[in-house]
Formats: sequence, structure tokens, C-alpha cells
Amino acid sequence: MTLLAGPASPPVPAPLRRDVAGAPARAGDPTDASPRATPYLELAPAAAVRRFRRLAAALPGTAVHYAVKANPHPALLGALTTAGCRFDVAGPTEVRACLAVGADPADLVHSNPVARRDALAECAALGVGLFVVDSPEEAIKLAESAPGSRVLCRIVTSGSGSDWPLSRKYGCSAPQAIEVLALAAGLGLRPAGISFHVGSQQRDPQAWASPIAAAARVFGLLREHGIVLDTLDLGGGFPAHLEGGALPLAAYGAAIETALRRSFDRADLPRPHTLVEPGRSVAGDAGRVVASVVGVLRRGDTRWVYLDAGVFTGMVETLDEAIRYRISTSADGGPTGPCVLAGPTCDSADVLYEKQPVQLPLALAEGDRVVLRSAGAYTTCYSTVGFNGFAPLATVLVDG
Amino acid sequence: MTLLAGPASPPVPAPLRRDVAGAPARAGDPTDASPRATPYLELAPAAAVRRFRRLAAALPGTAVHYAVKANPHPALLGALTTAGCRFDVAGPTEVRACLAVGADPADLVHSNPVARRDALAECAALGVGLFVVDSPEEAIKLAESAPGSRVLCRIVTSGSGSDWPLSRKYGCSAPQAIEVLALAAGLGLRPAGISFHVGSQQRDPQAWASPIAAAARVFGLLREHGIVLDTLDLGGGFPAHLEGGALPLAAYGAAIETALRRSFDRADLPRPHTLVEPGRSVAGDAGRVVASVVGVLRRGDTRWVYLDAGVFTGMVETLDEAIRYRISTSADGGPTGPCVLAGPTCDSADVLYEKQPVQLPLALAEGDRVVLRSAGAYTTCYSTVGFNGFAPLATVLVDG
Repeated sequence: MTLLAGPASPPVPAPLRRDVAGAPARAGDPTDASPRATPYLELAPAAAVRRFRRLAAALPGTAVHYAVKANPHPALLGALTTAGCRFDVAGPTEVRACLAVGADPADLVHSNPVARRDALAECAALGVGLFVVDSPEEAIKLAESAPGSRVLCRIVTSGSGSDWPLSRKYGCSAPQAIEVLALAAGLGLRPAGISFHVGSQQRDPQAWASPIAAAARVFGLLREHGIVLDTLDLGGGFPAHLEGGALPLAAYGAAIETALRRSFDRADLPRPHTLVEPGRSVAGDAGRVVASVVGVLRRGDTRWVYLDAGVFTGMVETLDEAIRYRISTSADGGPTGPCVLAGPTCDSADVLYEKQPVQLPLALAEGDRVVLRSAGAYTTCYSTVGFNGFAPLATVLVDG
Repeated sequence: MTLLAGPASPPVPAPLRRDVAGAPARAGDPTDASPRATPYLELAPAAAVRRFRRLAAALPGTAVHYAVKANPHPALLGALTTAGCRFDVAGPTEVRACLAVGADPADLVHSNPVARRDALAECAALGVGLFVVDSPEEAIKLAESAPGSRVLCRIVTSGSGSDWPLSRKYGCSAPQAIEVLALAAGLGLRPAGISFHVGSQQRDPQAWASPIAAAARVFGLLREHGIVLDTLDLGGGFPAHLEGGALPLAAYGAAIETALRRSFDRADLPRPHTLVEPGRSVAGDAGRVVASVVGVLRRGDTRWVYLDAGVFTGMVETLDEAIRYRISTSADGGPTGPCVLAGPTCDSADVLYEKQPVQLPLALAEGDRVVLRSAGAYTTCYSTVGFNGFAPLATVLVDG
């Protein structure tokens, strides 16, 4: 009978305890030697500005409206507005956050197609003049709440090719968009154009071609009936550097330019003002989540790594393992093996990656740092208020 | 060409606007006529106390430890501790929340099997003396962080029969539990017994029988080797009144009593102290989420109802439509039809029920109240910090 033989069976990884400060420092990886308590998001607003500029350069002539929902940190919004970035907002709270850092309300687009009447009125009172709807009901609501506003109608796309497809929650068909914009005109709104969204972290630059062509048909048909549209909102979906790689932004710019030329740029159908609403592609690469290993356990044949950050402290997008962050650790350098990655709450849903395990160093142990890269978007804002006693993910601002 | 014919096509529901205060008041439904801004959780601590007493009555001789993570509102914790309820905690924050309302640290069980070393030490310093682990690694960590503590080892269950199964994140096999508890004894910890969890919102009272029998085998084997265990933690999983119905708590009590008699109550294996860790079954029925309809739209053949509360303001458990709340509205009484139920954020994941639509009144319109019943657990605590500018779900305390 071996059961009382002591700690040797099953084997206990050694060293069980690792001095965090003694972990090997890596050049260019300041978190490894950081004494700061984890977890936190390390956010570099300057990096977001660079991403904004790269996106603007890849899409000349197109206005870039950062989607505030991705990460509304005031330092990030402030750096972006100083750099000339505009904003995509979903309600009065986000409008006020933009105005607080000096944004011009004329540079905001309200892109929540179904909104409370009082919220629409408040946005209009704060100076917002451009709203997205996708139904006759919401066009009527907008006409009553924010009379005279400019209005875009959102059309639905397939979302195929994206890591985080947008379901059927928003968007109507192109024929319905014609009805909605015509109705809007009749209600005293100013029909401005069409918006769409190809799905977040879209891998395929060709995904924009079909909705651009559909939008052009709407522009053409309405023009025949005296309604001249002048704005095309190309949505977001531009990728951050997640696992699986992504084409450079220039490839997206080129594909979109080709699609715009093919569908517009004719005497009877001039190219409209274009805008994009990137969230992840601006903020994602500007941040990374720094966590610590709470424990490494063997469960049957599976190695489980438990972090002090998880689904309820911001990594909601790992549900269904849709968004896969690139991961580095303070134990990198030696051999790696598969593991399941879990969060710290005693909620069984708090598992980041299980179906498709991640490769992490075999030497990884309690106290080691684990960095989730390109995690500046949809993390801190998705944190719970403190589920299970674990505080919301903090933000630490850095240069970079 | 009908496209410019005006608002008649497609039809716009009438009345588009409904005066909330003028909605029909229902006897016993105080929210209908409430002027309070939605959304909020209406929480009745007295109702939670009644549920605690019913559970205690159904399980005579078993200590009830409310799982704080389900809803840590101080008024709820205070009412429960006054009524004699004990608590299940996951870390120092929850321990302090219990102590703040007068709980005795001796009445707490720390049931997070993988925890930070500093958190374990802090809990012990606050007076917690009973901890759950499920691995040799964590037993060693506990021995170093909280020496001399009493320790339970968690064994894994299938989770079948539950609406929110607990995956493989926690729990070891019964043979491994023997190793862990023997190791714990060798490390100076005090082996206390076994814990398990059959999965949240467990529909089958027989789900406890198999892990109770497995626990009894561990008790018997360790007793042969001089380690006498005295505590069996039966976990949570007792249901709230969600859609699909649930057997009365007495049925659970009877099934557990039968299983305990079958596996214990022998001269060589006396019945241990038993405890349960209910979260949802205590807090769930003590609360309901009161929301308002933001809009009702037709998308193709589908009716979409948009609420001002959703996945990111607390209803995380609707993801994958696992937990289905019973729903009532201020428009109840007339004919109903299927609809998709969505939340207010402009995130496409913010959809509560789509695959299996909900039946709601055809007359439901903007401004109507929608009440998600038995939603007192795993809602406010799951709220995001304010994603997309929508505030965390507030709590309104009521008698009841």
C-alpha cells in the first residue's frame, strides 16, 4: 500500500515556489522583473496612436473613428483625439468620455442601432449629429428624439471570416435600408448613407467587397428618387495581432480601395465620404494583460495552469475560445507542452483555453508571469465588478 | 415603386411609445408601476432567509454555508448570518464581507481549491480554519500558507443533470483524494474530509448518491490507515425556480439522506458532519431583474426585443442559453409569440435567448417592463464595470 508513502506520489513539480523578482528578465519585457501586483493591463496609448496612424495611412481619405467600447480609458481617448482620431460611440456615457478629452462632437458617430429614446436625445443635446439605425421603428424614434439628425442605415453582412462574428443582432437587408432611409427623409431626418460591420478580427480583406457593392446599389436607387447619400461607414473588423496571424493593414486598405472603385467612382455614383470604426485594431496591440501563475496541476493526463486573471477579470472573449491571445511567460526558453489555461475564480466557466490547449513552458510554475499579448481591447471594459472577490482588471499606463 | 410611399411599409407597431407609468399595474407586482429607472435587481433578503430555512429543514443535521459568490450584497449576507446561516468563501474579500456582517470565521469554509498563497495566508489570519484543495500541489501550498488548517479534498463529479455543469476545472479522483489527504496529514494539516459539487441548478436529486458513495470509500480506506475524517461537504447545485421547473427541496433532502444512510451510518463508518454550499438556491429566488423594452423590431420573420439589461449588465449565464429565467412583463395577458431577447450594448454577443426563442406578449412595446424572475444569483456580481457605457446592474432592496 503506497498511499501513505508521502508526497512523492503523485510527483510534485519542483520548484513549487519561484521568487517572482528572481525570474529571468527579458530584454524589452519590463513586466518580468516588475514588482507590481498582478493582474493588470499594461496599456501604451502611444502604441494605439501608431496603430491609428497606420490604419489611417492604409485607408487614405477615410476618417477613422475609434470604437470607444473597446477600451474607454481616458488616457487612450486623449492620446487618440490629440492625434486627430475621431470616435464611434454607443450612448451618452461614451459621448461624455470623448468630450472630456477634448473631442469635437461633430467627430462622433452614434453607432448603436437600437437605443433608448432618452439616450438618443441626450447624445443629440451633447452635439452628436450622426446616428446609425437599422429599422423603421428606430428611425421614427430617432426622428422624435433627435430631430434633423443625419442618419446611416446599417445593413447586415454574413460575418464569415471573422473570429467574433456579429450574429444577426443588427442590420437589415439592402432593400429594407432603402425603405428606412426613405422613411427617415419623410420624417425630417437627413439620410446620410449606409453602415455595415464585417465582424470583429476579420481575417479576410475581401469581406468588405460584398457589402460595399450592396451599399452602392442603395446609393444608386435612392439617388434615382432624389435622395443623395454621401457617407459610407465601413465599420470595424480590422485585426489585432492575435494567434493565427493577420494580413497587414495595407492589404485591407487595398482590398477596400478596389471595392470602392468597382462600386463607386462613376459620374452617376461618386465616391462617398468613408469612415471606419476600428476598436480592436487600434487598442488591441496597445495593451497586454500581465498575470501570475497561481498553480500548475496535473489532472489525469492534462496539465492545468491557473492564473490570477481570467474570464471574469476581463478575458470574456476567450469564451468558446473565439479570441486567442499570443502568450509569453517569464519561464520561456525551454521545452513547452500543452496545458489548459484557467482563471482564479471558483467558477467552472472561468477557463480560458481548454478545447484547444495552449503550448507553455514545461518549467512554468507558481509565481511565474504570464503575458497575454494584444489584449488592450475588450478586456478591462469586460471585467466584472468584482466577481468572487477578484477585483476588476486594473490598467497600468506605460510608454511604448 | 413603393419605396417612397412612406412609413406604412414595413408596418410600424402601434403604440410605438408607451407611458411606463401608465402600464397596467398587476396585483403583487410592484415593479410595474414603479417610477424607478431600469434596469435593476430587486432583492429581498427576507426571501433568501426563507429559502435558507427551507433548505436547512430539508437537510436536517446538515450545516448550510451560503456561497457568497452568488450575490455578496451586504444586506443579504447580514440577514443570512442573523438567521444562522454559515458561508462558503473563495478568498479574503469574501471573508471580510462575511466578518463585516458579524459572521464567525469558524463558520466559513474556503472552497476555492486553487488559490494564491498570500490569499490563503490572509484567510487563515482572518480566522478561517477549513479549506478545500484537490491536488498535492495545493495541499503543500496550504500547509506552508495556513499551517495546521483543517482540509477537505474535492473529488470530481460528472455534472450531468445540471444546467451549468462544472467542467473539469476542479476535483480529483477518489484514489487521488486519498493521496492528497494522506499527504496533508504528513504536512501537519488536519485531514477533515471530502467535498464535491454536482453542478449548478442540478435537476436530479440522485446526482448526490454516486459522489457520496465515493466519499465513503475514501473515509473507509483512510480510517484503515489511521486517518479519521469527520466532514463531508455536499456542495451546492440545489435549484432556483428557473424555466423547466425543479423538484422541491424536500426531494433533494430525501435523496441525500438515503444516500448518506446507504454509504455511512455503520459502526465502522459513522456519518460525518455534513454541510452544503448553496448559492443559487438561496439567492436566486430572492431577486428579479427589472428591465425595460428599448425597442421591438422585425428582422425577417423574427421578432427581436431589445432590453436595457443584458449579458454585460449581469446576465452572463444566458450565454449558450444555459440558464433560462422565467419572464413576466407589464404587457402580459394577451396573446404571445416567439421572440429573440437581446441586451442594450452594441455588442453582438449581447443576446440573451436566440436559439430557443422566448414567448412574450405580441403587444409588448417600447417602454414596457420585463421582469426576469429568480435572478438574484449570479447577476449583479457578473455585471461588467460598465461596458459600452452601460452601468453595472444596481440593487434595490425590498421586503418580501
